[in-house]
Amino acid sequence: MSNNRAPIDRFFSVIPAGGIGSRLWPLSRASAPKFLHDLTGSGQTLLQDTWDRLVPIAGKDRILVVTGKVHKSAVLEQIEDLSTDNLVLELSPKDSTAAIALAAAILMKREPDVIIGSFAADHVITEDVAFQAAVHEAVAVAATGKIVTIGIAPTEPSVGFGYIKVGESLDVARAPSAKHVVNFVEKPNMANARLYVQSGEYLWNAGMFIAPASLLLQQVEKSEPALYESLMKIADAWDTDDRKVVLEKTWPSLKKIAIDYSVAEPAAEAGLVAVVPATFSWHDVGDFAAIAELQSQGRRDNLAVLGNARVLADSSSGILVSDTDRLIALIGVEDIIVVDTPDALLVTTKEHAQRVKSLVDVLKATGHSDIL
Amino acid sequence: MSNNRAPIDRFFSVIPAGGIGSRLWPLSRASAPKFLHDLTGSGQTLLQDTWDRLVPIAGKDRILVVTGKVHKSAVLEQIEDLSTDNLVLELSPKDSTAAIALAAAILMKREPDVIIGSFAADHVITEDVAFQAAVHEAVAVAATGKIVTIGIAPTEPSVGFGYIKVGESLDVARAPSAKHVVNFVEKPNMANARLYVQSGEYLWNAGMFIAPASLLLQQVEKSEPALYESLMKIADAWDTDDRKVVLEKTWPSLKKIAIDYSVAEPAAEAGLVAVVPATFSWHDVGDFAAIAELQSQGRRDNLAVLGNARVLADSSSGILVSDTDRLIALIGVEDIIVVDTPDALLVTTKEHAQRVKSLVDVLKATGHSDIL
Repeated sequence: MSNNRAPIDRFFSVIPAGGIGSRLWPLSRASAPKFLHDLTGSGQTLLQDTWDRLVPIAGKDRILVVTGKVHKSAVLEQIEDLSTDNLVLELSPKDSTAAIALAAAILMKREPDVIIGSFAADHVITEDVAFQAAVHEAVAVAATGKIVTIGIAPTEPSVGFGYIKVGESLDVARAPSAKHVVNFVEKPNMANARLYVQSGEYLWNAGMFIAPASLLLQQVEKSEPALYESLMKIADAWDTDDRKVVLEKTWPSLKKIAIDYSVAEPAAEAGLVAVVPATFSWHDVGDFAAIAELQSQGRRDNLAVLGNARVLADSSSGILVSDTDRLIALIGVEDIIVVDTPDALLVTTKEHAQRVKSLVDVLKATGHSDIL
Repeated sequence: MSNNRAPIDRFFSVIPAGGIGSRLWPLSRASAPKFLHDLTGSGQTLLQDTWDRLVPIAGKDRILVVTGKVHKSAVLEQIEDLSTDNLVLELSPKDSTAAIALAAAILMKREPDVIIGSFAADHVITEDVAFQAAVHEAVAVAATGKIVTIGIAPTEPSVGFGYIKVGESLDVARAPSAKHVVNFVEKPNMANARLYVQSGEYLWNAGMFIAPASLLLQQVEKSEPALYESLMKIADAWDTDDRKVVLEKTWPSLKKIAIDYSVAEPAAEAGLVAVVPATFSWHDVGDFAAIAELQSQGRRDNLAVLGNARVLADSSSGILVSDTDRLIALIGVEDIIVVDTPDALLVTTKEHAQRVKSLVDVLKATGHSDIL
C-alpha cells in the first residue's frame, strides 16, 4: 500500500447495522431491528438499499458491515455478496464509537492509508447518484486530512436531530461544495431549531462520517484512550487465530459512547471537520409517522400500506404495516397507525408516533420482553 | 291439558337465536353469531344470559330454542340443560315469523293452551328480577286473549328501533302496569324520534312478544295463510318420524317475513295488543359503540376490554375486543374500536360503528366470504 493511491481507491464503506428502532415496535424487534425491514415499499430492506447505494462507489468487496452477532444469519441472507471477511460481529451493543472505530482499526491494519465512510444501515436516501457524488467530494476532502460529514439541508425545524454549523468554503479540488464545520450542536429545543433553520447556516447531522481511518482513530485515542487501546487490541487480533479469545475478553468492558462525542465534536473544535452539503433527500424514518410521510408523498388523505395484508379501508388515512396475512379493515380513522404482527398489535396515530418508545420502555419494565 | 291452568303454568319461553350481527364483525360471524359471544364481560354468552334469565319464570324444561342447524353443537355445548326436545333447528334463516310461529305451533300441538313468550338470544338485560316481574304481568294479560309486548322507555331519540304508541290502561288483575297498544311505528327519522320521546307516549319495541300460541297463529293465518299452512304441516310432523322429510320438503320455500308485519302490526290494528312497560334496562348491543357504552357505564374516558388480550393502553378510550392472545398496545386513540380476531382485524371509531355493516356487505360482494 502507498499513500499515492487516488483518494477514491483508498475508500472503504462501513455500514454500522445496529439499534433496535424502539419507535418502530412491534415491527422492529431486538431480534429483527429496523434495518432488516422494508420500510419504504421498495421490495428491499433498508440494509439492502444501503448496500446497493454503496456498491457503485468502490465495489461490493469494499463494504464492511458491523452488526450484532445475533443478526449474522439475517444479514448474510439479505446481502448475498457480503463475505465474512467484511462482517464484524459485535458480542453486544456498545454504541457507535466502538462499532465504527473497530471497523476503522481492522481496515487500517489491512490498508494503512484507508479512508472509511460510515453510513447507517437504516436511513432512507432516494437519489443514489447525488449521494454517490457527495461521497466522492467527501473522500476528496478526507484525503486532505479532514473528517468529513455529509450535512442535510433542514426541511423543518426538527428537534429530533443534531445540527452542524457551517463555516467558510474549503478550497479542495473535486470538492467544490465542501465547507468548514464551525461546530456540532446537539438536538435543540424548538425555539433554537427555528433559529437554526431561519439562519440558513445550519445543516442536519445525519451521522455520516468520511475520514482516513488513521485520523479518526487519533481522535478516539485523544478523547477515549482506554477505549482506543481496547479496540486496537481487538483489531490486532482480528485477522489472527486469537480473535475469539481477545474479543471475548475485551468486548464486555468497552465504553459505550456515541462517535459524536468521541470524534466529531472534539475534531470540530480542533478545526479538523468539513462538511459536504447533501443535494439528495434523506430520511431517518425514525417512527411510523415518518414512514407514513415518506410513503404518502405528503398527501394527507393517503393510506400507506406496507406488507401483504388484505386491506379494506373506508375514509381512512395514515399507515398500515402488516407482518401477517390477516384481513385488516379500517373505517373512518384518520392519521391512524396500525402495525399488525403475529404476536403484537399497535394502534396509535401519527401525532403520537414518538410515544411508541415510551411504550416499549414500559413493556421492558413490566416483564414483556418476549415481545420486544 | 285444560284451560283452567293458572296463566303462568301455561307459560313456555321461546328463544329465537338467529341473526348474524353484521355490525359486530369480525367478532360475530356466520359461523359464530352474536348470541354465542360474551359481549358484556359477564363471563357468559348472551345466549347463556338469556337462558339464565328465563329459567326462574317456568323452569329449565319450559324453554325452547330456535336456531340454525349449523349452531346445533355450539348451542348444546353452551346450554347444558337444553334437551333436544326443546331445540328447533332451522335449515336456513327464514326471518322471525317462521322461527316464532313454528315454535308456537310445535308447542301448541303438545299443549293446546300454551302461552309462549319470545325473547331474542342476543339482547342484554341486567335487572333479571324486574324482567321476570314484567313477564309475569305480560302472561296474566296474554291469558285474557291478548298479544303482549314488553316496551322499553326510550333513553334517547333512537332511529334504530321501532316504537310502540301506548294507549289507555288495561284493567287486568296481576298486571297493574299493562296498557293498550294504539299502534306500532317503524324506525322513524330523527325528527319523529324526538317527537315520540318528548311526548312520553311511546316506548321502544324490543321484539318481546307474549301470547297464547293459538292467538299468535290465528294472526299468522290471517296475514300469511300460505306460510301458516306450511308451518302447521311442519309442526304436525315435528314429533313424528316424518319430521325430516316434511321439513326438507317444506322449509326452503317458506316466506321470509318479520313477525312485526305478520302479527304485531295487524293485531294492534285489531285492538289485540297490549304492552307492559319495562322497569329494567335493556340493550340490543347492536354495534361495538353500544357495547362500549354498556361497558364504560357512560364514562367517556374509559377503555372497555372484552376478551383475554394483554392490553397496554395509554391515553386511549373506546373498546377493544380480543379473540386472540396477542399483546395489543393503544396510544392516544380516543373513542376507538379495535376488534382483533385470528384472521381479521377491525379498527374504527364509535362514531363509525354502524358502518361496519356496509363493510361486511362489501366483503360479501368482493368474494371475501372466508372471513364472514
